[in-house]
Amino acid sequence: MIETPYLLYLGHSSDPADIKTSRGLAVFRPDISIGEYRHDNCPLTLNLPRMDFAAAHAAGARTLVLGIANAGGKLGEDLIVDALAAMAAGLDIASGLHHRLNAEPRLVEAAARLGRKLHDVRDPRPDIPIGNGKKRAGKRLLTVGTDCSVGKMYTTLCLASALEKRGLAADFRATGQTGILIAGDGVPLDAVVADFISGAIEQVSPARSDDGWDLIEGQGSLYHPSFAGVSTGLLHGAQPDALVLCHDPVRPHMRGLPHYPLPGIAETLDANLRVARLTNADVRVVGIALNTSTMAEDEARALCASIEAEFGLPTSDPYRFGVETILDRLLDTPLLAAIA
Amino acid sequence: MIETPYLLYLGHSSDPADIKTSRGLAVFRPDISIGEYRHDNCPLTLNLPRMDFAAAHAAGARTLVLGIANAGGKLGEDLIVDALAAMAAGLDIASGLHHRLNAEPRLVEAAARLGRKLHDVRDPRPDIPIGNGKKRAGKRLLTVGTDCSVGKMYTTLCLASALEKRGLAADFRATGQTGILIAGDGVPLDAVVADFISGAIEQVSPARSDDGWDLIEGQGSLYHPSFAGVSTGLLHGAQPDALVLCHDPVRPHMRGLPHYPLPGIAETLDANLRVARLTNADVRVVGIALNTSTMAEDEARALCASIEAEFGLPTSDPYRFGVETILDRLLDTPLLAAIA
Repeated sequence: MIETPYLLYLGHSSDPADIKTSRGLAVFRPDISIGEYRHDNCPLTLNLPRMDFAAAHAAGARTLVLGIANAGGKLGEDLIVDALAAMAAGLDIASGLHHRLNAEPRLVEAAARLGRKLHDVRDPRPDIPIGNGKKRAGKRLLTVGTDCSVGKMYTTLCLASALEKRGLAADFRATGQTGILIAGDGVPLDAVVADFISGAIEQVSPARSDDGWDLIEGQGSLYHPSFAGVSTGLLHGAQPDALVLCHDPVRPHMRGLPHYPLPGIAETLDANLRVARLTNADVRVVGIALNTSTMAEDEARALCASIEAEFGLPTSDPYRFGVETILDRLLDTPLLAAIA
Repeated sequence: MIETPYLLYLGHSSDPADIKTSRGLAVFRPDISIGEYRHDNCPLTLNLPRMDFAAAHAAGARTLVLGIANAGGKLGEDLIVDALAAMAAGLDIASGLHHRLNAEPRLVEAAARLGRKLHDVRDPRPDIPIGNGKKRAGKRLLTVGTDCSVGKMYTTLCLASALEKRGLAADFRATGQTGILIAGDGVPLDAVVADFISGAIEQVSPARSDDGWDLIEGQGSLYHPSFAGVSTGLLHGAQPDALVLCHDPVRPHMRGLPHYPLPGIAETLDANLRVARLTNADVRVVGIALNTSTMAEDEARALCASIEAEFGLPTSDPYRFGVETILDRLLDTPLLAAIA
């Protein structure tokens, strides 16, 4: 487990896309995001108090999160110097960069000397089992998508938060680096060895018997030729009772692959249900989540209504319009089934 | 590349199932299998000349293949002692065991001192790309299955060999440890990191323009809840023009999972075609391969005839009855298409 609260690192970043992980934390975990660290040449802000390392530690921060992306996921000299200073001020370091903290001798030496922890959230734990497909107790929802990066993490987090607001037990199960930092736990599924994909999900979403829900963060797409194997193993390991389909209505083609068009919603629903039924014959779709961030509000609402009518499924932009209708559908049918 | 010819290790094995890799090499690569090494307490033989390490080296052997499996894939003291003696006699060492040769300091030291190579065929090469799904030149056949271990490697090797006998260029593309030792090259797909499954297959079966065929060894099954992610990525990376479905007609349940029945042939064909069409819309099934090793010959022939009639696909036990009818189907349609 990564100790909280966090100090969120922006460093020298000037491109908003580069601080995606820090922003995700500020948005979804304001309760543990105590401040932001940025150099004078960084024009970005998360609207958190700006702190240096000593001030953050004094304010209670326990971990500096290097929540930025740069070309190639490299751990540059600037990052290393800042991480060393943060450790000297009393902070642990967490990173989702491809280049591992634990592969940098200066950081390893300083952590050992100062008694600090280095968290590489892209390193899977060493004891992941082979999946067994055995039915386990508990209710699970998985987000799936027409493509990568269409809002699966945001949707899953919104669903978890909305379920909790209704007084129900709900746990977000992270499968990517930003999600892991938000939850403080999870599995970096893209870094797991191929034979262990479904087993990793069985491990991260174990049996539960409190009548609560596991909300599992989806990855990739069955229609993405680079990553569909990950999505397949995720569906099998999750044994989902419910699916929510995430879609970006203005995406021109599959992410990174201009030669692959996006699949339609109907075929994506069909393919995901087929794959999911292997480990849970009763799986059903309970909603569609659209990322309408580039659309005007009336246009976005009209699109949600039109897709909702076409597929007979509650449709919303979770971040913009909430997920209440999707939750109604999720919680409705089992109740009726229980009465009947 | 692993240097040949091989000396095949049987060691102290007494269970025929434990020498599967050595036997696969003796069966499919008699041309490079120069002898067998076994201790006096080993009752098994591959019907190759029995040689000690010095005699094997003098006869031309270049690599000792530890083609055995034991509980947990461990590299026991007996194996280490034998490997050290083999290196002293001039041989490199190759192993598909889970426990890596390169993780054993005594072997690493001896290899460095003597100028020998240690080949851990379960270690993927470090430069595997993310798959891109781009159409590449060449013709590809992939074996798929109702389950794991239903004869996909044997079928693929039989197809490659039969194509060559017809005078056509054909390359076996290995995706498992035994196949890699047989081919001298390939990718240990189950050990590749999840995000790189399809990319690993794109790499191992690159563009070819000699009108020959790549015959790609399948892994797992879309219906195996532990490994379907691997099978999915393999289908996408292979972009197969042709599929051959492999099936064990007496398998009682999915390998290792008594709670999962085997899927039917029809649904397995359907699922594989659906997944494969993402990267090759023209994929077709050209045959069914049955493992009838436990059946009497008349019974086996009757079963092949019955399945052939039911599905309209050439059906055979490749190892027992050959693959000529499957090759006829494979080579027939493209020819007609070319004429038309």
